[in-house]
Amino acid sequence: MPSAQWAIGVDVGGTKVVAGLIDANGDVAADQVAQTPHRSTDPSVVEDVIVAGVNALVAAAQADGIDPDIDYARLPIGVGAAGWVDSDRATIRFAPHLNWRDEPLAQRLQGRLGTRVTIENDANAAAWAEYRYGAAQGESRVVMLTLGTGIGGGMVFDGAIERGRHGMAGEFGHMTVVPGGRRCECGNWGCWEQYASGPALRREAAKALHGGGPDAAPMRAAMRAEGGAVTGQMITALAAVGDPVAIEVMTAVGNWLGSGLANLVAALDPGLIVIGGGVSVAGELLLAPTRQALASSLSGRGHRPIPPVVGASLGPSAGMVGAADLARRGGSDTQGRQ
Amino acid sequence: MPSAQWAIGVDVGGTKVVAGLIDANGDVAADQVAQTPHRSTDPSVVEDVIVAGVNALVAAAQADGIDPDIDYARLPIGVGAAGWVDSDRATIRFAPHLNWRDEPLAQRLQGRLGTRVTIENDANAAAWAEYRYGAAQGESRVVMLTLGTGIGGGMVFDGAIERGRHGMAGEFGHMTVVPGGRRCECGNWGCWEQYASGPALRREAAKALHGGGPDAAPMRAAMRAEGGAVTGQMITALAAVGDPVAIEVMTAVGNWLGSGLANLVAALDPGLIVIGGGVSVAGELLLAPTRQALASSLSGRGHRPIPPVVGASLGPSAGMVGAADLARRGGSDTQGRQ
Repeated sequence: MPSAQWAIGVDVGGTKVVAGLIDANGDVAADQVAQTPHRSTDPSVVEDVIVAGVNALVAAAQADGIDPDIDYARLPIGVGAAGWVDSDRATIRFAPHLNWRDEPLAQRLQGRLGTRVTIENDANAAAWAEYRYGAAQGESRVVMLTLGTGIGGGMVFDGAIERGRHGMAGEFGHMTVVPGGRRCECGNWGCWEQYASGPALRREAAKALHGGGPDAAPMRAAMRAEGGAVTGQMITALAAVGDPVAIEVMTAVGNWLGSGLANLVAALDPGLIVIGGGVSVAGELLLAPTRQALASSLSGRGHRPIPPVVGASLGPSAGMVGAADLARRGGSDTQGRQ
Repeated sequence: MPSAQWAIGVDVGGTKVVAGLIDANGDVAADQVAQTPHRSTDPSVVEDVIVAGVNALVAAAQADGIDPDIDYARLPIGVGAAGWVDSDRATIRFAPHLNWRDEPLAQRLQGRLGTRVTIENDANAAAWAEYRYGAAQGESRVVMLTLGTGIGGGMVFDGAIERGRHGMAGEFGHMTVVPGGRRCECGNWGCWEQYASGPALRREAAKALHGGGPDAAPMRAAMRAEGGAVTGQMITALAAVGDPVAIEVMTAVGNWLGSGLANLVAALDPGLIVIGGGVSVAGELLLAPTRQALASSLSGRGHRPIPPVVGASLGPSAGMVGAADLARRGGSDTQGRQ
């Protein structure tokens, strides 16, 4: 494969930083995973983790001899980050789950990595990847949600990422679903992502365990086996084998997800909704109650089409794959109208 | 002016049906107003009102000799209607405030009026008018709200109406702002339009009067003068002269409007928000508290631009003017990307 077909994608999420070497088909040839530094950490530490991840990825790919023609010094790098990215695609204005405030990330990383770096909101990058290679191919109105530490949102309309006027569209996770509700890391109360995300899943499980009777025994046992902490994987695994408490927890989160989606469908009338991010590995355990809540919450139901809700076919890699493709294109999604 | 430059626009709202003769500059040369039949009435009665309105408009314009060159039999007619309009721009799938369910309105009206009829959602038509002739000229990401019996919504992105996948985007009024809140005519609970619309303004006033002490005396007196009913005009007039209860009522509705707009800004990142519809005649009395609530509710505030919130410069005529312009263009908003 010619070197120009390769790119590096980096996904900076609330818990993990993943760097991958991505080919022109959106396939991941190699990857490296690191922990995201705590949100109170100095921003430069997150940069350190990104730079170390890219360098480790390159070293591993060279050692593995993935493609002798790759000119690693010139590979374009795309970074998908969980934050408000300015319309210059270089500056992170605000990141609720990271310590970035008006951070000129592209410039800083270019200085340290010596190659062109494109920044994109992580959910925009994921939506782009699903549109280019995944579940949303050929769809003219795509809404994508990435469920992880929060809810990321991206839209691809008529073959172009819909970024809004200042590059900050798609912050669905910070739409208020409960006035005066749970406190959010963004500073507001009642944001959707406080009710439908990885932390929300764990919070629902903790509530169920607190009040739970004998039904909660399997989850308590699983918690003890994990050193006392309830995890998303644990809830998913228990729900998959029919554990009633885990299923109840999935349903509660699916209800919030589906009723919030009804708001997005009212506003945007998408043709397809794609659910990605770490939490989406729960698959139908989450998607089935989500679809049900969407169908029963939608205004005008019975008189309008309800868009399908499907899992991301690229899974949690979507953000990294999309960021790499956007970097390869010089940051522009030129396939569509722009 | 050549006959091809003229068109008829009809706005079918929850309370009024207005038909106007509109020129290519978006100016209203003549108009006719009628009451909207009650929502329990047979759909054909609404058609009767539209047909009678158009015929009366034509008779009046001919009698006034507005332009001898107008070929009235061939004037394109655009109808802006408060409902979910299908992507064929001919069928109303659902109208919460009218008795339309899967109504082939374009075909019915064409049969009775003998000329080409284009249907558009009324708020889409209003947004288009403001983009073409009004407050939103030159703006690439316009969000428009029309406040009347409900909240209508329209978007103009890159010079084209953003209708979504099935023609039903922009139903902002039916986004849930209070889970399990006030019952809406659409069948759901807690829809935004139950908190920020003409009826919401009157409901807030009724609450204030119910609990009110001596401060409520001016509004009580105004009510008695109007035969016991509180009206939007009454609240606006009292607020304009500094009546504390009327100002409190405007502020309450502005708070709901602004906090709901924060959700739209999070999702869509518009460059400009235009507020039209009958309630918008309150102007700054409503817009000032709305802007304040938007600024204090927006996630990421301080790190992102807050779009200006302005009144519709075409006022309540915007829907009619936009529908006429869309009919003149054969229903297509071809100025932009499509």
